[in-house]
Amino acid sequence: MPELRYDLVKKTWVSVAGDRALRPNDFPLARKNLEAAVSLFCPFCEGNEQYTPPELAVRRNAPGEPNTPGWDLRVIPNKYAAFELTGEFVEQRNGMYRSCTGLGTHEVVVESAQHDLEFHQFDRARIHMLIKVLVERYRVLAQDPRIRYIQIYKNRGMVAGASLEHSHSQIVALPLVTRENQGMPDYYEANGRCLLCDMMEQEFKRPERLIFEGEHFIIMCPFAPRFPYESWIVPRDHAENFGDMTPGEMEELSSLLYHYSRAVIDGLSNPAFNYVVNTAPVNSGPTPGYHWYWEIVPRLLIESAVEVASGIHMNPVAPELAAPMLREALLAAMNAGV
Amino acid sequence: MPELRYDLVKKTWVSVAGDRALRPNDFPLARKNLEAAVSLFCPFCEGNEQYTPPELAVRRNAPGEPNTPGWDLRVIPNKYAAFELTGEFVEQRNGMYRSCTGLGTHEVVVESAQHDLEFHQFDRARIHMLIKVLVERYRVLAQDPRIRYIQIYKNRGMVAGASLEHSHSQIVALPLVTRENQGMPDYYEANGRCLLCDMMEQEFKRPERLIFEGEHFIIMCPFAPRFPYESWIVPRDHAENFGDMTPGEMEELSSLLYHYSRAVIDGLSNPAFNYVVNTAPVNSGPTPGYHWYWEIVPRLLIESAVEVASGIHMNPVAPELAAPMLREALLAAMNAGV
Repeated sequence: MPELRYDLVKKTWVSVAGDRALRPNDFPLARKNLEAAVSLFCPFCEGNEQYTPPELAVRRNAPGEPNTPGWDLRVIPNKYAAFELTGEFVEQRNGMYRSCTGLGTHEVVVESAQHDLEFHQFDRARIHMLIKVLVERYRVLAQDPRIRYIQIYKNRGMVAGASLEHSHSQIVALPLVTRENQGMPDYYEANGRCLLCDMMEQEFKRPERLIFEGEHFIIMCPFAPRFPYESWIVPRDHAENFGDMTPGEMEELSSLLYHYSRAVIDGLSNPAFNYVVNTAPVNSGPTPGYHWYWEIVPRLLIESAVEVASGIHMNPVAPELAAPMLREALLAAMNAGV
Repeated sequence: MPELRYDLVKKTWVSVAGDRALRPNDFPLARKNLEAAVSLFCPFCEGNEQYTPPELAVRRNAPGEPNTPGWDLRVIPNKYAAFELTGEFVEQRNGMYRSCTGLGTHEVVVESAQHDLEFHQFDRARIHMLIKVLVERYRVLAQDPRIRYIQIYKNRGMVAGASLEHSHSQIVALPLVTRENQGMPDYYEANGRCLLCDMMEQEFKRPERLIFEGEHFIIMCPFAPRFPYESWIVPRDHAENFGDMTPGEMEELSSLLYHYSRAVIDGLSNPAFNYVVNTAPVNSGPTPGYHWYWEIVPRLLIESAVEVASGIHMNPVAPELAAPMLREALLAAMNAGV
């Protein structure tokens, strides 16, 4: 059973796989695995459904049994999940150490049946389908009272942490709330207002970091970005929870992602990237002050020892210089029509 | 002037270079730079002293002027420093945003004149010389009252964040104390005892994560390691500050690093790695509860979106399985004699 352990020095939780010792040569970065990854067998491809655990959700383009060809998008459990949804949440003590069972889920959304069709090449309909499926899975997972946080994300490219090429997103459901976005509830407690709402108000006054203003969403570079060319897609109206998106918002978000993912790929010379959804905890009582947002992080640098040691990210690109470049790239993508 | 900005959501500081826009193709990961890095010109090589800023400290093996050939080890300012030691520490406000000038220093220790001699290939004398120079620079930097934290570290290999091959360490002196190791003072405040002293006491009782016991230092895998095969070299006796090491401790640490760096390279199939020195703040009043330690982090995985988003590291190797492997590799390195 996987385990979460509390790091007493860093005051964070770490997910530790207890029962298998991955040898150094088993890691995706090992040379032989790098070579294997670019070729050969892909468990996410159409026709290989029997090599993955049975699907949890599916969108089909042709009638057929579950786990057979004819699908457009599949949601499957991660075969190497760090979490298992069994039993109750129990915190254990071992002397001064704290840990808990890795209660939770880890799902993979295979975004297309085609091996080489990437996120930034999807048509609007496919991105819209993906967003709807992510919201659907979010709502399903939030129904389990043991789940406290749902983390949706994507790794694209080896230096963004991807181990498989075939385009996919992931959903991890956790039994605890990380303190990573603790600034939001803390700001609310101190000021009685939402941090991101206040932030947008300030950004509108002098829009040097603003990339785009839509009806429901804006795109901006944050004031203190950890990563070069990091940007956020933020709901304009206060909205705590990703799972509460309306159909109109989902449609606009899909359209923005359709253009903006092309802009990031073209404008930044085809970078590896992550997207991550930051949202309010679930099953945790009221969560005022949280405001969900979609973060896009190009991975142009590898985190060095400074980040490992001090947590201080060294960002060589000021967001006031990144925003105009991303704005221009977005305009180009929009003008390219399609 | 570089700048530190406060990330209101993550509640951490970010170093942002304000005045230059690194274009996507300027980053070390860009294909053309990867190719360039493996060949061509190296500013750290003997004979190229004029391509670096003037040296701050040096160990010579032949008499000669500063910044001329005949040296064994050089300390130079980082040409692309994120910090500058000028003026006073001033915190600025811009509406809700906080920032401060990037007051501090960023030094590079070129560990050898030879381009292809790596840390794990150094003889004992060279490692001893390096440790003594690190302690010396630490003590010099700590004399400036504007400096609050001194971060010593090394990036070895591209996936550990290195952009130059030639073996070097780095020293960043910061105007503020990061909260990354806040668990140590917090534990002291809650328990009136040192976290690491208590931790070692517990580890000795059931030494499943212990790798080595020396006279002054132990080597262990921590209970909640963020990285696979992460290990710590910890002073056995309570010692807050890296700069307070005695000559006897420096000698033992050098000898341990001599063997253990070989063990990590051989035992883990030549991984990229970081070392980082965790230590107490300086010029910050009493710092009880801090206990310095030398952390060695093989970089076998690239941090994925889960770490970026939630701060929860996913470690596929339990420290109870990593420790025996590292123990065996260390024994082999020690038995190889040399």
